Amino acid sequence: MTQDSIPTQTAKVADYLFTRLSQLGIQSVFGVPGDYNLRLLDFVEPAGLHWVGNCNELNAAYAADGYARINGLGALITTFGVGELSAINGIAGAYAEKAPVIHIVGTPSRALQESRTLVHHTFADGEYRRFAAMHAQVTIAQANLTDPRTAAEQIDWVLEQVLVHSRPVYIEVPDDMVDVMIPATNLEARKIQLPPTPSPKHEELVITTVLERIYSAKRPLIFVDGESRALGILPQIDELVKTTGWPTWTSAFGKGLVNEKLDNVYGFYGADYGSKQSKAYFGSADLLFVLGPHYSNTNTLGFTTIPDQAASISFSGTTIQIGKDSYRDFSIQHFLTQLLRSLDQDRIPRAEGLPPKSKMDLSHINKSDLITQDYFYRFVNHIFSEGDIVATETGTASYGGRAFTLPPNTRMFGAVTWLSIGYMLPASLGAALAQQETNKNKPSNGAGRRKGRLFLFIGDGSLQMTVQEISTIIREKLDVTIFIINNAGYTIERAIHGRQQAYNDITSWRHLQALSFFGGGEEDAAKNNFTARTFGELEEVLQSERIQNGSGLRIVEVYMGREDCQGLLKTLLVSQIAQEAEN
Amino acid sequence: MTQDSIPTQTAKVADYLFTRLSQLGIQSVFGVPGDYNLRLLDFVEPAGLHWVGNCNELNAAYAADGYARINGLGALITTFGVGELSAINGIAGAYAEKAPVIHIVGTPSRALQESRTLVHHTFADGEYRRFAAMHAQVTIAQANLTDPRTAAEQIDWVLEQVLVHSRPVYIEVPDDMVDVMIPATNLEARKIQLPPTPSPKHEELVITTVLERIYSAKRPLIFVDGESRALGILPQIDELVKTTGWPTWTSAFGKGLVNEKLDNVYGFYGADYGSKQSKAYFGSADLLFVLGPHYSNTNTLGFTTIPDQAASISFSGTTIQIGKDSYRDFSIQHFLTQLLRSLDQDRIPRAEGLPPKSKMDLSHINKSDLITQDYFYRFVNHIFSEGDIVATETGTASYGGRAFTLPPNTRMFGAVTWLSIGYMLPASLGAALAQQETNKNKPSNGAGRRKGRLFLFIGDGSLQMTVQEISTIIREKLDVTIFIINNAGYTIERAIHGRQQAYNDITSWRHLQALSFFGGGEEDAAKNNFTARTFGELEEVLQSERIQNGSGLRIVEVYMGREDCQGLLKTLLVSQIAQEAEN
Repeated sequence: MTQDSIPTQTAKVADYLFTRLSQLGIQSVFGVPGDYNLRLLDFVEPAGLHWVGNCNELNAAYAADGYARINGLGALITTFGVGELSAINGIAGAYAEKAPVIHIVGTPSRALQESRTLVHHTFADGEYRRFAAMHAQVTIAQANLTDPRTAAEQIDWVLEQVLVHSRPVYIEVPDDMVDVMIPATNLEARKIQLPPTPSPKHEELVITTVLERIYSAKRPLIFVDGESRALGILPQIDELVKTTGWPTWTSAFGKGLVNEKLDNVYGFYGADYGSKQSKAYFGSADLLFVLGPHYSNTNTLGFTTIPDQAASISFSGTTIQIGKDSYRDFSIQHFLTQLLRSLDQDRIPRAEGLPPKSKMDLSHINKSDLITQDYFYRFVNHIFSEGDIVATETGTASYGGRAFTLPPNTRMFGAVTWLSIGYMLPASLGAALAQQETNKNKPSNGAGRRKGRLFLFIGDGSLQMTVQEISTIIREKLDVTIFIINNAGYTIERAIHGRQQAYNDITSWRHLQALSFFGGGEEDAAKNNFTARTFGELEEVLQSERIQNGSGLRIVEVYMGREDCQGLLKTLLVSQIAQEAEN
Repeated sequence: MTQDSIPTQTAKVADYLFTRLSQLGIQSVFGVPGDYNLRLLDFVEPAGLHWVGNCNELNAAYAADGYARINGLGALITTFGVGELSAINGIAGAYAEKAPVIHIVGTPSRALQESRTLVHHTFADGEYRRFAAMHAQVTIAQANLTDPRTAAEQIDWVLEQVLVHSRPVYIEVPDDMVDVMIPATNLEARKIQLPPTPSPKHEELVITTVLERIYSAKRPLIFVDGESRALGILPQIDELVKTTGWPTWTSAFGKGLVNEKLDNVYGFYGADYGSKQSKAYFGSADLLFVLGPHYSNTNTLGFTTIPDQAASISFSGTTIQIGKDSYRDFSIQHFLTQLLRSLDQDRIPRAEGLPPKSKMDLSHINKSDLITQDYFYRFVNHIFSEGDIVATETGTASYGGRAFTLPPNTRMFGAVTWLSIGYMLPASLGAALAQQETNKNKPSNGAGRRKGRLFLFIGDGSLQMTVQEISTIIREKLDVTIFIINNAGYTIERAIHGRQQAYNDITSWRHLQALSFFGGGEEDAAKNNFTARTFGELEEVLQSERIQNGSGLRIVEVYMGREDCQGLLKTLLVSQIAQEAEN
């Protein structure tokens, strides 16, 4: 196109942007209206996107993140300054844990910005670029759509970055740019997708080396970590796990990314989980296939579960590391596909000395026993079925949830690295909505109730952070069951420090009134509330028709001890008590 | 002190910091516990400070801002990454509207930071400085306490900046620095205060010029804007208004900073407020005494109320502007004190042609009339009494609240420039707490109920943003009455754009269950709820014993029309309807 040619196909900026979101598989957009994004919002529903108005912008960011992790991409729209800064902690979390979120901000018109007019939602100092500078710290790419000549290319470029990096991006749309016409031939002519990765020069060598390592392994294993999701290699992992039959473990971040019902899948790996034989096998493995590693202190239980690199082949970003040697610039997805095709099934060694899978023996629990953290999670495990989502908020719930054995195709969210308490409730809203949209396009499994079920386990402290999003879950008619763990405050913090300090207390709420307060239908508000203090009561709740086959939001308040915790948390608590005794 | 000398007086870093806060008049600190601030929190209550645990960090920042505007200084403590970023929009608001807030962040230990360990609450990339870089955009000074040799000086320097600029500052305390000993002789030897302002060379000239202008004025007036609070000149303004008897108006930001019961104080100035005579007087004044101007679009009704500088003497920051001439580097407080001392009472011209004060004629309202925005605010006005705080959240409430006539010593919060909806509820918590602390040290006014009363007017949309802080208001036993304006969504946004768009809708809540859900005492939860649809019902509520003389939190749900609004909002709405008719 020469400078003077007029494009034959044009579209308004907002239409172009929202059409692109639609093409990329986004069906719902989250956010909050504000003075500088109202004109932009006019275009959302006409573009065929569902608008989800959240109670505040942080919640919208969390929801878009949860949506992105299930759907593959999520988006939110906020307003300049106040809105985008309220959301920024949620954007940071998406950056930390590689959730592909598009943050669209409606900004003041170009005329106001260029004349440095002292408008509201600024510091009344004529400086309009601060918030973008802040977002540059927590997003992988940014675009400010101020010029119709470049806006389309900017949008396309930014959206390509979100696919490439699986990390949030930031798009500013000045109020007066919303309905400006821009060239739109690309909408049909150019699909936004991962750019092709040219075959790196070492490709053949690496394939050969990996195959040799596979064929010669004696004690092989597969370790699935959470960045596998961002790498888009879940189908390849599934095939690898099935084809090899090798024992497979996951990190907390990787949990829910492989089918735990397979005989060779052992679930979460860590000091307090699994049998001694598991640990012995893991420790003496001569080939560790490591997929999507994410080595933060929390995801590695204090750096204790990081596989020995000398015996590992790791797949991370665009790099394959074999022992000490790194090979860059691979498409991991492409490489694994190639590898699986090249595999000679007959030469794959069967893993020997396989550890037994740990069983859940709960037979010793009496109905009158008070509910405790150590058995609670395995006790409720049987309500999950294929296609569900299980969300465990940072705290005792995320520790406990590692013990779940998940049905196939069951995704799970837990504490990884960002650990912003309050995240999980709005993220559940987003995830459940994405799941419901996905399931609409799938054949029903017969029971006819599978709109998209999500089970959230959350402590009473975390709940207080973002509780109002319960009302959006109600409005969106999502099938969500929330187990509120009432243990009178921040038990995870009590375990870490300040066991008896008042700063770890919270105000006690009447949780079972939430459904009514936040606008639930009268029948739901009256009948969808449950409470349990003993395992007997809990079993009754789990068997009830409304939990098993009901719809909409259900709330179960489960009482547990103020200092009841497990694993590392328990160790920390015990050491505090010992110190107190010394003083 | 030479390099090798050992300071005779030392203190732990946390003790030093909290002692300084105490010395500066802070009695309560807001925040949320988190992994990296727990050790720091151990020192809060032992230092004699009251810890207020908020439901989330944004609410804590808003509360600290509200506290700061009443108390003169406020503080919050958050944790690294997740906590501080959740709070950052509140810090930005304090920056925009000059609230002196100290943001203290507990960060990972120096060892973890220096070794770039991949801990939680980071992006697992070894980069620890991003969040400080973001805070540098919204704070006036920053300190990272990593070195015991400089920590005390850093603390003192940062605290001086918050006094000088009346804007937020940022202090990072690494986890392992909390109990490190530092030199503490300054705690007694050096008071933190505004540094003295040397007399600028033009001082005498400026005093003389201003006096001449005063003595020769024919149609003088005083215009009080909101930065007068940050300038610390409220007593001088009070004296000036009383001494001159000149007609006095305020902006929205300035409202509540002068005694509106005085005959010459007319309250809020703007297109839709006050009589024609007021506007005529304002427009033809030959001397405008302008104090603490803050000229954002919202605080000047779209730049329509900015006084003509040619006829003005303006006092802003450290600058005095007389007509076209600017004189810098003054202490405005000192200058005004000098000026008042030099004033020859007999030569002060009496203002002539004073406009009449508008009266509130509500006699035409019938009991059965539905409540409307145009009369609601003046109708409830009579419940305010001396020493109260009135808070009007951005939206129809902040527009309506401009019509209040406030009793003496009644502070008011309204929409100024940042306009982050959700601000006002947590800010009310902070303000009411500061007021209660202040009143403890004052003689009772006899009625014996003046612990600190606050009246909050808030729309149902704004309420959803930060509603959970109701539970902290309950826990802190503050005397707060909340009028929830139930008009089914974001009416302010409907007025601006999207009158009938679904994105301006919200989920309907059962507001009168809030007290119970958020943990109110059983009697309060049952009896402190009120509702009104007509002016008759409203009057009954206002007359009730629990509203008049009760204590704790009371909630009044007031129903108003979905599109009922006033002033500029009404103009915008009418123009939308006209456009719709055209299309």
